[in-house]
Parts: sequence; structure tokens; C-alpha cells
Amino acid sequence: MKKSLLAVALLGACAGAAQAQSAVHIYGTVDVGIVKRSGENVSIGKRAANTLGFKGTEDLGNGFKALFHLEMRYEPDTGSSETGPGGNQRQLFQGESRVGLQGDFGMLRIGRGLTPFHETIGNFEPFHAIPTAGGFYTDLSVAGYSSQPLDPVGSSGNRWSNAVWYNSPVYNGFQLNTALSTKENNGGVAVIGRGSAGAPQYPVGAEASANPFSVSATYHNGPAALMAAYERNAIESKVWSIGASVHATPELKLMGTFTRLDEDNTRLFDTDTSAWVLGANYTFGPGKFLAGYGQKDTDGLEKVKQLSLGYEYSLSKRTYLYVDASRKKGPTNPSTIHQYDIGIHHTF
Amino acid sequence: MKKSLLAVALLGACAGAAQAQSAVHIYGTVDVGIVKRSGENVSIGKRAANTLGFKGTEDLGNGFKALFHLEMRYEPDTGSSETGPGGNQRQLFQGESRVGLQGDFGMLRIGRGLTPFHETIGNFEPFHAIPTAGGFYTDLSVAGYSSQPLDPVGSSGNRWSNAVWYNSPVYNGFQLNTALSTKENNGGVAVIGRGSAGAPQYPVGAEASANPFSVSATYHNGPAALMAAYERNAIESKVWSIGASVHATPELKLMGTFTRLDEDNTRLFDTDTSAWVLGANYTFGPGKFLAGYGQKDTDGLEKVKQLSLGYEYSLSKRTYLYVDASRKKGPTNPSTIHQYDIGIHHTF
Amino acid sequence: MKKSLLAVALLGACAGAAQAQSAVHIYGTVDVGIVKRSGENVSIGKRAANTLGFKGTEDLGNGFKALFHLEMRYEPDTGSSETGPGGNQRQLFQGESRVGLQGDFGMLRIGRGLTPFHETIGNFEPFHAIPTAGGFYTDLSVAGYSSQPLDPVGSSGNRWSNAVWYNSPVYNGFQLNTALSTKENNGGVAVIGRGSAGAPQYPVGAEASANPFSVSATYHNGPAALMAAYERNAIESKVWSIGASVHATPELKLMGTFTRLDEDNTRLFDTDTSAWVLGANYTFGPGKFLAGYGQKDTDGLEKVKQLSLGYEYSLSKRTYLYVDASRKKGPTNPSTIHQYDIGIHHTF
Repeated sequence: MKKSLLAVALLGACAGAAQAQSAVHIYGTVDVGIVKRSGENVSIGKRAANTLGFKGTEDLGNGFKALFHLEMRYEPDTGSSETGPGGNQRQLFQGESRVGLQGDFGMLRIGRGLTPFHETIGNFEPFHAIPTAGGFYTDLSVAGYSSQPLDPVGSSGNRWSNAVWYNSPVYNGFQLNTALSTKENNGGVAVIGRGSAGAPQYPVGAEASANPFSVSATYHNGPAALMAAYERNAIESKVWSIGASVHATPELKLMGTFTRLDEDNTRLFDTDTSAWVLGANYTFGPGKFLAGYGQKDTDGLEKVKQLSLGYEYSLSKRTYLYVDASRKKGPTNPSTIHQYDIGIHHTF
Repeated sequence: MKKSLLAVALLGACAGAAQAQSAVHIYGTVDVGIVKRSGENVSIGKRAANTLGFKGTEDLGNGFKALFHLEMRYEPDTGSSETGPGGNQRQLFQGESRVGLQGDFGMLRIGRGLTPFHETIGNFEPFHAIPTAGGFYTDLSVAGYSSQPLDPVGSSGNRWSNAVWYNSPVYNGFQLNTALSTKENNGGVAVIGRGSAGAPQYPVGAEASANPFSVSATYHNGPAALMAAYERNAIESKVWSIGASVHATPELKLMGTFTRLDEDNTRLFDTDTSAWVLGANYTFGPGKFLAGYGQKDTDGLEKVKQLSLGYEYSLSKRTYLYVDASRKKGPTNPSTIHQYDIGIHHTF
Repeated sequence: MKKSLLAVALLGACAGAAQAQSAVHIYGTVDVGIVKRSGENVSIGKRAANTLGFKGTEDLGNGFKALFHLEMRYEPDTGSSETGPGGNQRQLFQGESRVGLQGDFGMLRIGRGLTPFHETIGNFEPFHAIPTAGGFYTDLSVAGYSSQPLDPVGSSGNRWSNAVWYNSPVYNGFQLNTALSTKENNGGVAVIGRGSAGAPQYPVGAEASANPFSVSATYHNGPAALMAAYERNAIESKVWSIGASVHATPELKLMGTFTRLDEDNTRLFDTDTSAWVLGANYTFGPGKFLAGYGQKDTDGLEKVKQLSLGYEYSLSKRTYLYVDASRKKGPTNPSTIHQYDIGIHHTF
């Protein structure tokens, strides 16, 4: 009888048929701190992205694996889904939703995730790619470039929906990472570009004018690593970047990036941007010092200059406390913004 | 002291009091592919529903069990919650949120889930109830019927919120499945029906004019299975359906359904629809061929005719690749739509 | 090669680096029943809050622990996220999103969660703090007070976003619990207060006029417990409360609270409210009787009087059935509301 009762639930439960064999790994981050920013009240906020993820792999034999990855993002100060510009809440699995195969041929994935350009450059940034103002990752490292200008308001600027990824295996320290996105309408906003408010160059719900693609190459050799990347988005902005890092000593890692952005498809002025970031990480017992300085220079605009200093103190492999101070100057009002934060970062 | 500190957190944590005894099973599906549809760009999309679910049972002794089931749905190409018509995002636990008891008496559940009609007929459809255009499940099998016309835009058409389910035990291969829904306002849209735009038959936020109910009966005997179902929704549309399947050989399963829909409570014209689907599944080593043909005939409208062919190649018990081709003709513009897809389906 | 492929995914996966050491506990509640309320159709609804949570602790050595807590809330009758006033859906982790440290010094947490006042008083309420109309927790126990009047519509009235919590260790049965919130704009609605519709005292997006804080003290001694609490919210409403409970016999627990609310910062009339609730729980084999009576008296308004009776029958440690009847009289229309419910509560 139990068998038959189960049969009733079969349609709804078929996804769980292989449950006994399943190995879902749940992981995540909670990062919360106290933030003071020029001209604003003291607030509670994050320093790193906050995640709750589900992932797993399945051995298919002959060195092949199937893999999946679903990652939520959230704001721990309010309990909401991660919010983007204007307070717009992001997708349920903002972080990643991909499935794929892995083997001698490399790794092939489909769905939504970081572009190869963004995934690679984050490893050459001195604040390990934290997305908040203390670090350089989301603005200076990428020269102000957004991967998905035609996505809904609140989408992140470094991911693609509707794409296919291929990562090569590593040959003598060298690896190639690529992604190609469709032209489909992602339900996004208008981009006025070289048009007008009444006739935007890309109207609401526009499809990409060319297939977005992204490619990065990395080379590792002992203590040294190099990268180069090129990406074109849905409105044909083009970005390229090179980076390098070296462990001068086991405790000291030095790194730098240079990135150039070409937006002449959608702009008449201020079409070219160059940016560079230099940084260092120094590990000392349970402590780690982080330091970086960078500039972003858009033709026709005042330069953006940022200095950031940070310190992380590990309570364990999974938990550390942090404190940061950063100063950013640029064509904003006020032109100089100081930010200080102190908080806790816990992974599970 | 630890005990006392825990006491502080008691109110928030009481739900987790029995955690040590808990056995939550996490399961899900990631199904993503490349889709080409007549008149549209190549896109990334799904073929089957994508789920992330949490479920469990508790042994109560004497053959009784308590059970629960919470199932998220999502779109892996964008990472969003599952989207319905008009791109509206569905509920957090769109798939199912039910709790109940199971024993010699059968199974009694309360909450939200598939109606018995929809749960049953999916097993007699040749594309194992995939909800996308390649299969017949959400349109032809059910003759265009929706279970919840008074629910919010974006709700799925085959589930009930606010309902109670009872599944009988199986006697000599026979089982009865029933559900009854409340009349409560589900926050839904207006249905003009026999009214006018200014005075809809069911205004915004209307309650059901009669309690929706659904009943299905199934009979299994060796390689053969039969079904019959009847359902009435919140606006008193009525649907009945019969179906049969037989394993002609262990590799070959043949199946068919006939469904009739009566919408005369809300329509003056085009009130009656008949639909039938015939299909076959043929398993050959790791491969499985799927084929189906069906028609939907609404009085006063041009017939809808659909032919679908598919192939699934299993890499393991949990992962397969698929390719489909389907053609659908009907009173649409253009009248013929071809769809092709190729992708990967992974369960965990 | 596998190592290198993993390297590619490093940026996205860094949060999961410690996964092998992780111990995430998944827990939750499903509580659904049939509800009949004066003047409304029979509906399916909840009695207790419904949760799906993820939590864990990490041993840091020397008696220190790191801990986190993420808790979703949902409505099992529709599968949606928990809804607040006006049907507005609440945050993803409405229940709680906190991280912190615990040790000999007590417990320090940061993020979002119940205020100490609300967390404490719930333990002195005879319906174990169920948030629905059968119980006293969300209205009479707290004298109609809301912790977060400047939060978005749909937010719950007993939690703070953007706050820091400190719970002392227990000395001789005595414990102190405190929380302090920032003044930051939480994206909330206007509060007209002593202003006008055109010039509200707190306009849309207003910051708190003073830092909200909450403090509670509890004392446990054998079968007896006492509490006292004081809290001030973002618009400077002030609430204080005292409560007591005693196990007169091992089966019989008696309890009561008295609460006083001062809203003269935002009101010209009806500024002061007093409320009291008396209750009892009596355990008899697998059954538990719950009874309570309370009054809320706002200067200038008719008194609110509520009587509630309930019975819970445990099928196991994790599952019980319940039935309740309650009557509430007050300055509403109709002035007397009866509510009956019968349902099932399952924890996992």
C-alpha cells in the first residue's frame, strides 16, 4: 500500500527519485558590519556578498562528472534578497544557477553566472573581490564596465543570464575560459545611448544588438599568475584587461590590473575609460593586511582615485573579523568619500 | 550558562527543537537547454520544471506517518523564481507546500499542490508532464483547462492553494484521489466571463462561486493502467478526462487521453472543448524515444494540432541529455509554430 | 587538471571553501489548519508562524563559538513568502538573519531578528507566541505596539533590521538582553503622526528620530520566572512590560503580563495604552489545554477584550493537532469577532 500511495505522489516527486544517491552541499556566508560613510549616519551593512547555496556533483564514470550550482544572495542587515541599484531586489538565485558536465575536455555549463572576465579579474584584486565600496572589484578593476546593461533594474553588473560557459583544461599552467550569451530580451530597461529619451538606442525590452561574449586566459607558474580578458556586452561596449600577481614571499602577495573600456557604440562623449589598480596582501599569523590604490580615467571626466586599507583577523578557518578604511575621490558630490567599516565574516 | 543563553533564543528557535531527530531531504532538478522557436531568436530555456525542494516524513508509530513537502520552482536561465504568463514571478514554494498524515486510511494533506486531475493525467502523457511547449501536458492533455482562474497573474494553472487532499489506499489496484478547495479570495484577477469589462462576472478579488473540487481514480493491473478524472474550478468550468497506458513490451509504453472541457458558466460562445493525445515511449539501451500527437477542438475555433518527437540519452540515473522537435498548428499567428530544443536534465 | 578547473570556479565558490567542515542544520515548521472567522468564509490558514531555516555554530576554542541563523517565513496555504498587512510579501529571511559570537562574555549578534522585548514577552503568553488571532502575542501582550513603524509595508511589527544584540550570561538565574538599532532609512512608509497628510511627521524614507533600543531582563528560580522589558522605537513610542510565570504543579503553568505603551510623540489623542493578559497551560498525557484572557485599554477608545481557549494533542514530539476557539470584542465593526480553527503543526 505504501508503494501505491507513493505512486500517487509520483508526478510531483519525480525530481526526487534519485534522492537516496544525492549529495547536496549547502554552503554560504554571513558578513555583517558597522559602516560609516561620509555624509551618512552609521549603518549596519555588509562588506562581502552574502550567500546561501546548494551545489553538487555526480560521478558519471570515465572521468566525467555532472554538476550543478544554485546560489541565493541576501542582505543580512534586513533579511531581504540582495538589493541592487535603487533598492531593487535581485533574483532568487542571483549568485548562480548553472548545470553542466566536466571531464578531460574541460567544463561546459549553461544557465546564469559570472562572466569569465569578471570571474578572472576578481582574483587579481587586493580585497578578494568584495562587491562593496571598500574594495575595487565592481568599479575600478573593471573600469566602470557593466556586463548586462539590458537586464532589469537591480541586476548585478557582472553576470549573464541565458549563457553557455566553456572552461578548457589546464595545459602547462594555461587555461582558457569563455562564455557566449543569447540575444534574447531579458526584460530590461531602456538604454538611451546615442538616441533620445523618446527614441532610445535600446528601448525597453530590447534584445542585444550582437551576441555578448567573454573570454579570459590565465597562466599560473609557481608563485606567479597572469591574466588577459576581453568581453563585449549586449550594447556592444567592449572591455579588455590584463593582470598579474606574484607571491614575493609566502606571506606577501603583490598584484595589479590594467583595464580599458570602449563605449563608443552608445556614447558621443566620454567614450573611453582606462583604469588601473595596484595592491598587496600580507599575512602575519592570524592577521592579514590588505592594501590597494587605483585610478579610473574617463576621457572628459575628472579622474576617480581610490585608496583602501584593510585588516582581517581570523578566529578560525571559517570566521574572521575585519576593519577597513577607504577614500575615494572623483566627479561626485561631495568629491571625496571616506568609508570605514568593522565587522564579522562567517562561512558555513 | 550555555543552557541559559540558549533559553534566550528559545522563542525564535522553538521550531527547531526537534532538530536532532529531523531528517530533511533536499532534492531538485536543473534542466536547461538551447531553444529555437519559430519567429524568435535562439534562447536559453528549460524543458522540464526546475525545482529545489525540502521534504520529510516522521514515523508516528502504528503505521502512521506525518509528512511535509516544500518545493521551490525557478528558472535556471536567469536564476529567478519560476515565471508565469506575462513574466510574473510565482510564489516562493510554487511547486508545493503541504503537510499531512499517512496510514492505513490513506493520505490526508492540507496546503497547496497539484490537483488530483492534474497529478493523475500527467502520468498518461508521453513527455512525462514537462510543462513546456514540446510536451502536451499543460495545454492539449487538459483541453486548455486552468484549475485556478481567480488566482494572481503568474499562478500556474494546475495547482490549488487553500485546499485539502485525500488519497485512498489502493484496493486491488484501484485508488481514489480527491481534493476540495475553499472559496476564499486568493488575491486574483478579474474574469470578465459573461459580464463586461466594467462589470466582470468575477471582479478582482472575487471568491469562488462554488467550492472547487477534483477527483481522480486510477487502476493498475500488470502492464496496464487506466484513469478517470473530474474537476470543477472556482468559476465553475468543468473538465473530465479518461486515459489509458499499456506496456506492449517492456521497452514500449503506449498511452492516450481524452479530455472534455465545459466552460458554459463563463462563455456565450466557444464553450466546449475536446482534446485527445496519443503517445509512445520506447526505451533502447541508455536512450529513450518519446513521440506524441494530439488535437484540441474548441467549438467555433480552428483545431489545434500538435506533433512532438523527443529523444533522451541517459548519462546516469540522475542525468540525461535531450533533443526535441515539435510542430503546433492552430488559430494563432503564425498558425504553425516549430520548436526545437537540446539540453541537459540533472536531478539531485 | 581537476584542481585547475576548480581554480576557475574559485571566485564564485570561495564562500564554500570550508564546506567539508560545515554543519548546517535545516529546520522548520509547517502549520496549516481550517479557519472560520465571523463574517468570512471558511478558509485554509495557519495558527503558528511557518519557517524554513538554516543555522549553525562553529567552535572557535577557549569556549568561544561563532553562530549564524537564517530563517525564511512562508504561508503554507498558498506557498508564498509570509505576507503582512495588505497582503504584502515579507523579506526572504523575514524570521531572522544574524551572525555573532558566543562565549563566557555572553552572546553578541548583528543583523535582523526579534527585539529583546518581543523575544522575552512571548515566553509569558499562554499560546506560546503564535502570531495569529487565536493568541495574544502580537496585539494584547504588547499593547498594540510595533517595533518598526518606519519599515516597508508588510514588515512584521516585532523585529529590527540593522541592529546589534547583546545577551549577558546568566548570573544566579538573572539575564540581561539588549539591542540597539541604527537610525538608517529602511525604505519605509510615512507616519503622519502629529503632522498632516501633506507634511507627515515622518515622511517616506525617514530615518529614526532617535536610535531605537530594547532591553529585557529575566529571572528564573525553580518553577518561577519573572521578566521586565523596556523598548523605544524609531518614532519614539515607548513600551514597558512586566511578566511572571509559575509552574503551580508540573502539569499546570500559570502566567501573566502587564504592558504599557506611550505614543505621545506621534499622537495628540489616544496616546496611552495599558494591556494585561492572564493565562494557563495544563498538560494531561499527550494533550495540552491552553487558556487566556486579556484586555487592552487605550485612553479614549473602547476596551479590547479577548478570551481564547485551545487544545493541542501530540501525535509525537514533532507533530500535534490543535483546535482553538477565541472571542475578541473591541472598537471594530462588527465589535465581536469569533474565530475557530482546527489543524496540524509539524516541525522538522
